[in-house]
Amino acid sequence: MTDVLFPYEQLRSFALTIFTKIGCPADDAALATDVLLSADLRGIDSHGLARLSGYVRLWEAKRINTNPDVRVIYETPSTAVVDGDAGLGLVVAPKAMKVAIEKAKQAGTGWVSVKNSNHFGIAGYHSMMALQHDMIGMAMTNASPLVAPTFSTERLLGTNPISVAIPAQQQPPFVADLATTTAANGKLEILQRKNKLAPTGWIQDKSGNTSTNPHELKDGGALIPLGSDYEHGSHKGYALGSIVDIFSAVLSGANYGPWVPPFVAFLQPPADPVGQGIGHFFGAMRIDAFRPANEFKLHMDTWIGRFRSAKTVEGKDRVLIPGDPEREMEKVRLAAGIPLNSKVVEDLTDLGRKLDVNF
Amino acid sequence: MTDVLFPYEQLRSFALTIFTKIGCPADDAALATDVLLSADLRGIDSHGLARLSGYVRLWEAKRINTNPDVRVIYETPSTAVVDGDAGLGLVVAPKAMKVAIEKAKQAGTGWVSVKNSNHFGIAGYHSMMALQHDMIGMAMTNASPLVAPTFSTERLLGTNPISVAIPAQQQPPFVADLATTTAANGKLEILQRKNKLAPTGWIQDKSGNTSTNPHELKDGGALIPLGSDYEHGSHKGYALGSIVDIFSAVLSGANYGPWVPPFVAFLQPPADPVGQGIGHFFGAMRIDAFRPANEFKLHMDTWIGRFRSAKTVEGKDRVLIPGDPEREMEKVRLAAGIPLNSKVVEDLTDLGRKLDVNF
Repeated sequence: MTDVLFPYEQLRSFALTIFTKIGCPADDAALATDVLLSADLRGIDSHGLARLSGYVRLWEAKRINTNPDVRVIYETPSTAVVDGDAGLGLVVAPKAMKVAIEKAKQAGTGWVSVKNSNHFGIAGYHSMMALQHDMIGMAMTNASPLVAPTFSTERLLGTNPISVAIPAQQQPPFVADLATTTAANGKLEILQRKNKLAPTGWIQDKSGNTSTNPHELKDGGALIPLGSDYEHGSHKGYALGSIVDIFSAVLSGANYGPWVPPFVAFLQPPADPVGQGIGHFFGAMRIDAFRPANEFKLHMDTWIGRFRSAKTVEGKDRVLIPGDPEREMEKVRLAAGIPLNSKVVEDLTDLGRKLDVNF
Repeated sequence: MTDVLFPYEQLRSFALTIFTKIGCPADDAALATDVLLSADLRGIDSHGLARLSGYVRLWEAKRINTNPDVRVIYETPSTAVVDGDAGLGLVVAPKAMKVAIEKAKQAGTGWVSVKNSNHFGIAGYHSMMALQHDMIGMAMTNASPLVAPTFSTERLLGTNPISVAIPAQQQPPFVADLATTTAANGKLEILQRKNKLAPTGWIQDKSGNTSTNPHELKDGGALIPLGSDYEHGSHKGYALGSIVDIFSAVLSGANYGPWVPPFVAFLQPPADPVGQGIGHFFGAMRIDAFRPANEFKLHMDTWIGRFRSAKTVEGKDRVLIPGDPEREMEKVRLAAGIPLNSKVVEDLTDLGRKLDVNF
């Protein structure tokens, strides 16, 4: 179970070849690779190369179209609906985010709801696309139902993340990227691999009792919305996850709630879909649609500086700004390499063998 | 400490007279009353009549302008910045939300950031204004710093609520209205009045240790962001509260973070303001800027119906949809009256005496 370090370029080249082998046009393969690897670089290991063979299995099951016609099917000056044509979310999402950014250039803001897509990697990649345009970026997506609403024993929501990226001047940007659950599924996967118990408040069993068994979801259990229990506000996490679901899928015409198709190819999508594929939602707000961008960014520097220099509790040397840990991780991993655990290495080696690519 | 029931009309008439006495024009007084009383009707007692004398004290301290010129000072097709002219938030907020709705009619969506305002009552009032236009409504605001970011012992954020209102067809609307803290300040006030301990995870003491003392904030303690502690995602609640602060105040030019002026008149605003007053942020998205409104609302009926009929944990007879408890409370209180506890009754009686109005 030791992790081995791989240079970023080696992993990039492998993923690029795999995406090309399964039929992605060159530009799409490069885009998908960039999005996927950004998760590994930023330390969100569950959403990076560890998922590559999962995407390929979905393609084998004919649930992913690697040559999609991603297109705007409806629009107003500040909104659009994008049909992902069953493409890789890794490709559909940045294309839809680009539409949001173009809308914002004209109308001040742009808002794009996407249907007929698949898993889009980390939300933060897409929201951060807005930063270079002096815009605030937003990205969210629904996902396979693993989460039980407060008081429910049924899994009706995904971990439905929200990302918001906000530019600053001298300071690095503010980048929040959070699952609307107490713990992201990736954290559970780490516990499963290490055979460790989960803290209480992350998981419930099939009857809705709190559980520390990280394998509980295989036995009808569920992840718990941010808040852990009703007394600590799990109904708020449930509301936030619901908003993500509705913006991503009910606005666009994708599947929502328990109808969202599972990411894993060995589970069939529901036989009675209420829409097409999974849904995403993107937003871009031009800073200077509110006030001069420089003025705003200087105030963001003040905001970030004040929070970063707050007095800390004992044992912690600083208050973090959202995005700090991921940015620092990216720097380390670009220089030192990306650690992959032996199961992921094995999985990628098998994948390479199947598609005749050296890992 | 017994609660006495008062008819809605009596309380409405009292508040209307008070707002008129302190100089609000007739329309503004009616609007402020409507917003304030909506909190009492919906069961958010901390934000209703219990706050009336607080608003009056701020007016006495010349921190509220009861005859403000609320105006758009900057705009693009889908955005605006509104200067509240130091008016009552209860008046400024619905006027700004109206601007968002008008923008949405033209551009598909409307987004309004507000500076130079004051406490705006419940966020849900403003977001729900969008519903009658077949729009999704959003409202958020920053507030006096009572919340410590994860790992901080300093209070840098308010309870910074987010409200999102989404229309349905046959089903009542989905209305989320949540403080981005584990517990809203109002819940703490209830424990203070009843001399009860708080659950762990709501409050920390001045050193950042968890505390169950509901009076801890008077001794340098702080409310904790949604999530309760780092292991359960308090950094997510901190990020959400930060986003509310930035959208409300850094975009508009209001005060943010620890510079937000306190709601209570006996505390002076910071001597080194970074903006004007407190800030709000409003959004309106026309449903048919994405898909036909009827189609969307029928799917919302399906969404709500599915969640409402989910299997429940033992001891709970149903899964709630955000907005259910408040809507049911409103029905009860409109019919049976609004309960006020003796401290609030005493406070309102004193207020009436001061301004020569019978309570």
